[in-house]
Amino acid sequence: MDEPAPSDRIRLRRGAHHGRYDRATVTDVLDAGLVAHLGVVTDDGPVVVPMAYGHDGDRLLLHGGTANGALRAALGRDVCVTVTVVDGLIIGRSPFHNSMRYRSVVVRGTAERVPAEHHVAALRVISDHVVRNWATGRPPTTAELRRTLVVAVPLDEASAKLRGGDPTDEPGDVETGHWGGAVPIDATWGPLEPAANLRSGIEAPPAVAALPGRPASPSPERPGRADR
Amino acid sequence: MDEPAPSDRIRLRRGAHHGRYDRATVTDVLDAGLVAHLGVVTDDGPVVVPMAYGHDGDRLLLHGGTANGALRAALGRDVCVTVTVVDGLIIGRSPFHNSMRYRSVVVRGTAERVPAEHHVAALRVISDHVVRNWATGRPPTTAELRRTLVVAVPLDEASAKLRGGDPTDEPGDVETGHWGGAVPIDATWGPLEPAANLRSGIEAPPAVAALPGRPASPSPERPGRADR
Repeated sequence: MDEPAPSDRIRLRRGAHHGRYDRATVTDVLDAGLVAHLGVVTDDGPVVVPMAYGHDGDRLLLHGGTANGALRAALGRDVCVTVTVVDGLIIGRSPFHNSMRYRSVVVRGTAERVPAEHHVAALRVISDHVVRNWATGRPPTTAELRRTLVVAVPLDEASAKLRGGDPTDEPGDVETGHWGGAVPIDATWGPLEPAANLRSGIEAPPAVAALPGRPASPSPERPGRADR
Repeated sequence: MDEPAPSDRIRLRRGAHHGRYDRATVTDVLDAGLVAHLGVVTDDGPVVVPMAYGHDGDRLLLHGGTANGALRAALGRDVCVTVTVVDGLIIGRSPFHNSMRYRSVVVRGTAERVPAEHHVAALRVISDHVVRNWATGRPPTTAELRRTLVVAVPLDEASAKLRGGDPTDEPGDVETGHWGGAVPIDATWGPLEPAANLRSGIEAPPAVAALPGRPASPSPERPGRADR
């Protein structure tokens, strides 16, 4: 049976039949995304900032410099973090029923600062979410860790929305001469582009070298960059 | 000369050298994106919702049902709308310098309801932004228009951030044996998928039929779906 919404404010109203609240679905979508949009309330209004992120199964993790305004505004406050993967367009017989194939997660909760002694573990989670090259790169220095702010938002209050398939057209429209269907997006990692200042003879680490040709927006059926 | 930030609260702090404030750059990024993240403040905290959008050069336009909670919370209030296009990963010699190639726009301002007499024009802008099939689909009915909420946010207070190129590694790291570079994302429209209930002999309209093989995240150099 489908899990119920963990709170009233996270429960989906629009397209509620596309909503899911179980942790496995939420983390599948989080595994597929690259960028989260963090929404915080600042003294001069709401702000939405795109950020790299990761998750440890229980918390969504974000990082930035210690001067990062959005992250500082988030500390100890109620925030919303949304991750969206667009898989294609859905074309209705009427543009009114155009839609998209997408997977999204909305997380609401209080953002807490991750203490300095857990910075390395949290940064590794974020870094390896994007591409699993933490272990093969130069480790962070104490100074770098000190000027980093890491923020965690619990996944306890999260909803996922999954939309695939065909347009939901009016029955009468299906009988007309208008086309309906979908156009998928095929997002694939392209060939590696070595930095202009890369010294000769240096090979990319395995996790990076494995990317070209693989799906950039993976799904459980099409595993991607991190092989979770 | 680069245009200055239109307000202090929209001025980029982090990565300020990647920031641009001229309208042409802002609309180029908006032309490339598919989904906007609308941030609003509700009675029970901030919410960030992914939405289709369009723009008319002066205003960013969003739509939804009249019961749409985020759009209703936006009316007459200060909001933030962010559009992000991820073009690839940037791999540093140290994961600390990992980044992404991306283009983003942040718009802040007061969301205003578009009056009913302008619904058709505004919905066409949004629909044609996604795929230019408004003119070839079944037109909206009066009832459909009546149950639609359209919201506009002026582009007067907007910033764009463009990040491409190579990692910004520490000079000492470049001399080590660690790899640095980038992995682009090649996002392309896949083959059309006719709806399961499509009647035989119906061809997709030209704007849809033209999509397969074209870039899903276009740029001025690689024009995309709407041929703007």
